[in-house]
Amino acid sequence: MRYQLYYHPSIQGRGEFVRLALEEASADYVDVARRKGGAAAMMKIIDGKRTARPPFAPPFLKAGNLIIAQTANILFYLGPRLNLSPRDEAGRLWAHQLQLTIADLLVQIHDTHHPISSALYYEQQRPAAKRSAEYFWRYRAPKVLGYFERVLQANGGKYLIGGRLSYVDLSLFQIVEGLRYAFPKRMKRFERKIPGMIALRDRVANRPRINAYLASKRRIAFNEWGIFRHYRELDG
Amino acid sequence: MRYQLYYHPSIQGRGEFVRLALEEASADYVDVARRKGGAAAMMKIIDGKRTARPPFAPPFLKAGNLIIAQTANILFYLGPRLNLSPRDEAGRLWAHQLQLTIADLLVQIHDTHHPISSALYYEQQRPAAKRSAEYFWRYRAPKVLGYFERVLQANGGKYLIGGRLSYVDLSLFQIVEGLRYAFPKRMKRFERKIPGMIALRDRVANRPRINAYLASKRRIAFNEWGIFRHYRELDG
Repeated sequence: MRYQLYYHPSIQGRGEFVRLALEEASADYVDVARRKGGAAAMMKIIDGKRTARPPFAPPFLKAGNLIIAQTANILFYLGPRLNLSPRDEAGRLWAHQLQLTIADLLVQIHDTHHPISSALYYEQQRPAAKRSAEYFWRYRAPKVLGYFERVLQANGGKYLIGGRLSYVDLSLFQIVEGLRYAFPKRMKRFERKIPGMIALRDRVANRPRINAYLASKRRIAFNEWGIFRHYRELDG
Repeated sequence: MRYQLYYHPSIQGRGEFVRLALEEASADYVDVARRKGGAAAMMKIIDGKRTARPPFAPPFLKAGNLIIAQTANILFYLGPRLNLSPRDEAGRLWAHQLQLTIADLLVQIHDTHHPISSALYYEQQRPAAKRSAEYFWRYRAPKVLGYFERVLQANGGKYLIGGRLSYVDLSLFQIVEGLRYAFPKRMKRFERKIPGMIALRDRVANRPRINAYLASKRRIAFNEWGIFRHYRELDG
């Protein structure tokens, strides 16, 4: 099966959580919108006139005739197929539950720089963003990242789920990388509170396929159009 | 199977999307935290010391030994069991994808009154809330509700998916109800743009079990502690 991933061609964004899974599994996939004409093909599917079940937004995955949207939904589908999640129903639901909690966290990270509206530029909501980032780091980050640290430690410290790598581990790697990029000063202070997650981040980064992917041109660099953005004044 | 639903006892919130499904299916369920000692039992599970796979937050559902959290994940699990979703994989993923898009919308509705932080009172972020509500209604609401209107119409106008009621229809009923409560003036102007969804709302409200539920004490009234809150100054 050759998978077709559709996502914005110039940011990591939500597509990155899917890319990491496909890369770790060495799956046969095309990052469609990064190819010539691909962005137009993506918009045609979103526009929905010729699609029975149109996605609301990217990322979405074409797998044969199936079009699946919503990042966590894509990973739920891919998990057992890429050997990156448990196969039993209870295990799949648990992995998905953790992934949805990561998705919620991601919205809150995005909202540190865009608290009022995505239709406005950052510069048009800077004072609100400063407060939002402040409260995110005071309450939300410790609560959510502390939760994942507890789940990880309760499972022995090596993986989030069972005795094998899952897409949830890959996603938490991305969360740590993104927070380091966006908030280097705050993260430097914060990381001692999540030693398990930092060690997990290192193990994921050192996996041969992930390591090769991160060094390749396929990995888009973080930038100020994505979810994780670095604005010095938000970094405390 | 007697399901045990755990959710905050005094708001509709995210729990309501699960309640509507359980009620429509006439499922055997207990709304645990609304019973004596139930809120403490809920916190004990969240606290996680005695739970192998602790939820991050309510709502969560106990089904036998399984504990499932994240609203959309609960509905994904319940769907085929309550006869409220397709049974084939592609259909279940499609229903779930729509539900996750509703979940995203719900965050944005919540953020109209709490754009900066949930750790602050509404009164501490009122100017930001006014801008947030304004932009929500200018861009986000038309885009997301317009998407669901198109999906509904493309499917014949009666249900979102196939030829039968699903939990997604019940959830969209709740979205319309909530928006009417929170933004009566704006909704009055907006509803002509989503005639299919309004007709769907009426059909759902008139289903015998939903109708009985809405008239019962089990239906908590909307209030200013939930996701849908009425503040006159946000209503345009």
